[in-house]
Amino acid sequence: MKKHNFYAGPSILSQYTIKNTADAILNFADTGLSVLEVSHRSKEFQAVMDEAQALVKELLEVPEGYSVLFLGGGASMQFCMVPYNLLNRKAAYLETGTWAANAIKEARLFGEVDVVASSRDANFTYIPKGYVIPSDADYFHFTTNNTIYGTEMRYDPESPVRLVADMSSDIFSRPVDVSKYDVIYAGAQKNLAPAGVTIVIVRDDALGHVDRAIPTMLDYRTHVKKGSMFNTPPVLPIFSALQTLRYYKELGGVKVLEKMDLDKAARLYDAIDSSRMFEGTVTDPADRSIMNVCFVMTAEYKALEKEFIDFAGERGIVGIKGHRSVGGFRASLYNALPMESVEVLIQAMKDFEAKH
Amino acid sequence: MKKHNFYAGPSILSQYTIKNTADAILNFADTGLSVLEVSHRSKEFQAVMDEAQALVKELLEVPEGYSVLFLGGGASMQFCMVPYNLLNRKAAYLETGTWAANAIKEARLFGEVDVVASSRDANFTYIPKGYVIPSDADYFHFTTNNTIYGTEMRYDPESPVRLVADMSSDIFSRPVDVSKYDVIYAGAQKNLAPAGVTIVIVRDDALGHVDRAIPTMLDYRTHVKKGSMFNTPPVLPIFSALQTLRYYKELGGVKVLEKMDLDKAARLYDAIDSSRMFEGTVTDPADRSIMNVCFVMTAEYKALEKEFIDFAGERGIVGIKGHRSVGGFRASLYNALPMESVEVLIQAMKDFEAKH
Repeated sequence: MKKHNFYAGPSILSQYTIKNTADAILNFADTGLSVLEVSHRSKEFQAVMDEAQALVKELLEVPEGYSVLFLGGGASMQFCMVPYNLLNRKAAYLETGTWAANAIKEARLFGEVDVVASSRDANFTYIPKGYVIPSDADYFHFTTNNTIYGTEMRYDPESPVRLVADMSSDIFSRPVDVSKYDVIYAGAQKNLAPAGVTIVIVRDDALGHVDRAIPTMLDYRTHVKKGSMFNTPPVLPIFSALQTLRYYKELGGVKVLEKMDLDKAARLYDAIDSSRMFEGTVTDPADRSIMNVCFVMTAEYKALEKEFIDFAGERGIVGIKGHRSVGGFRASLYNALPMESVEVLIQAMKDFEAKH
Repeated sequence: MKKHNFYAGPSILSQYTIKNTADAILNFADTGLSVLEVSHRSKEFQAVMDEAQALVKELLEVPEGYSVLFLGGGASMQFCMVPYNLLNRKAAYLETGTWAANAIKEARLFGEVDVVASSRDANFTYIPKGYVIPSDADYFHFTTNNTIYGTEMRYDPESPVRLVADMSSDIFSRPVDVSKYDVIYAGAQKNLAPAGVTIVIVRDDALGHVDRAIPTMLDYRTHVKKGSMFNTPPVLPIFSALQTLRYYKELGGVKVLEKMDLDKAARLYDAIDSSRMFEGTVTDPADRSIMNVCFVMTAEYKALEKEFIDFAGERGIVGIKGHRSVGGFRASLYNALPMESVEVLIQAMKDFEAKH
């Protein structure tokens, strides 16, 4: 049975990425060796790294003066690398969910943290507005998309100070004005690659302004200086990332991806809003994520949630169980998810509703 | 043409590992999904993580009270994680090569470092002996195998203080008395898995004795507490590691691997020592690595080194160029390299010698 993969991450990748990765595991770039067993210093892998960096720059229109890094450790490692490299005295953070809160926790180890606003009061079901970013902060950090709660900021906020964004779960789903940012980072296991690599886009001249000693591996300058090859990088995840980037370019770039993503999300939100059995957990349409659609059953039908997951499972739908902090369902509609899967989910919702 | 993969790392993996990984990229554990796109919280991946940890414990006879972690970031990240977690005032380090020196550099950010001995005076071509480990050090750190220089300590040294070892390039090539160690770490891209995961074996009660605040991701306790699943781990590299571990168990365990490794190294060192054209760079047989055999051409034939690399390349031999710090050649004989490849290399050496 064909599977419809709604996992929140690691999550669906394009068949192009999967097929090319499987091929390279048997024979990489005609070397007669597996991509799992070639030196990262080989000319064949250097070409992978170079092209991957170049394609990120091309697709996101990264201006001159920025470096693109592929690091291990996950976005969670960036929660401490950002303040290690950028926080001298005080940083401003927007608290929009679990990952933002985790980033705040790490920043507090390095200096004062001004949480400019938080939506914790309503279980992070909205994006705070009207907050003021202090102009004496070293930087302002926010999370573009909140996987667990299904909210998203699909814009580049104005900031009087350096701007830092965790774009782990929505990078490559819209054009970004990179020139507004000093650091963008993204764990790759949503819209880019299998788990194990984190993309970091850093403005070179944002570095070197803190007084503390930084461990070599945590210092962005180490990786900038060595073209992201200071030590052995996660070779296979980077190879897969390159396949996805090529595929995105072939499709027409991030504007085309954005259009597809908006269409998929609109279809699903419409189905939820017009149903009597399901309701969205994020009520302001402006705050709704187009990557992670969170919904629950209305009070009347609450007891049927478990049954619906099994019902959907019988149709090949996997990964729609909501995070325990929200409950209900979460359908992740990352770039690689086809509209067909959204339609299958909607049909399942309709059929289930008809049944009850 | 069949390739003979002598890369120093990332390096040759067993065909068992490669084939099973390629299969799982198309269909993982009968889920109908790629291992690249399944949630790390799925029961299928949890089973991979559990079995991988259990097999490390079984193969290395890890006693009770230790945790096995699979972390991202490479062994280089451990160079700072070790002192972050264990160094209160002073640590002792043995300097046997570039990686040891890099570990020392990081430790100095956290406290006093006593370099108990160094073989830097002779370009790290031997293992220092007769050094004294100060009993007031928080721990003693050494590197079991020095990939670049081809030296190795194939024993568990006596230490009056906590023992920490970087076993990146020779783990699973001999039985280890884990009970003597507080931390063993190993970048996986030699004897275990593709690049992107680092194995850490840590004695639980060695943790929690330093005063400093440790960033969450750098605190071993975070990962111990969460069974190495605090955040998304490098799923594919861990899946491949599990394949290798299963293969090792099937072969009969580390004692069998050790025998195979000793045989391969003996064959190659014998060929080098009995040749008029080649000579080993490590002269004391007790210090010679069985994982990385470093050799050069004698003064008389020095000019032919480049030609030999091409000559060997025509026979499918790849990855034998020595590191620039040593020059000449380096043949890495990791566990997955068959004796057949060693024979092909020896034959190439003989044929080349006959030609000149």
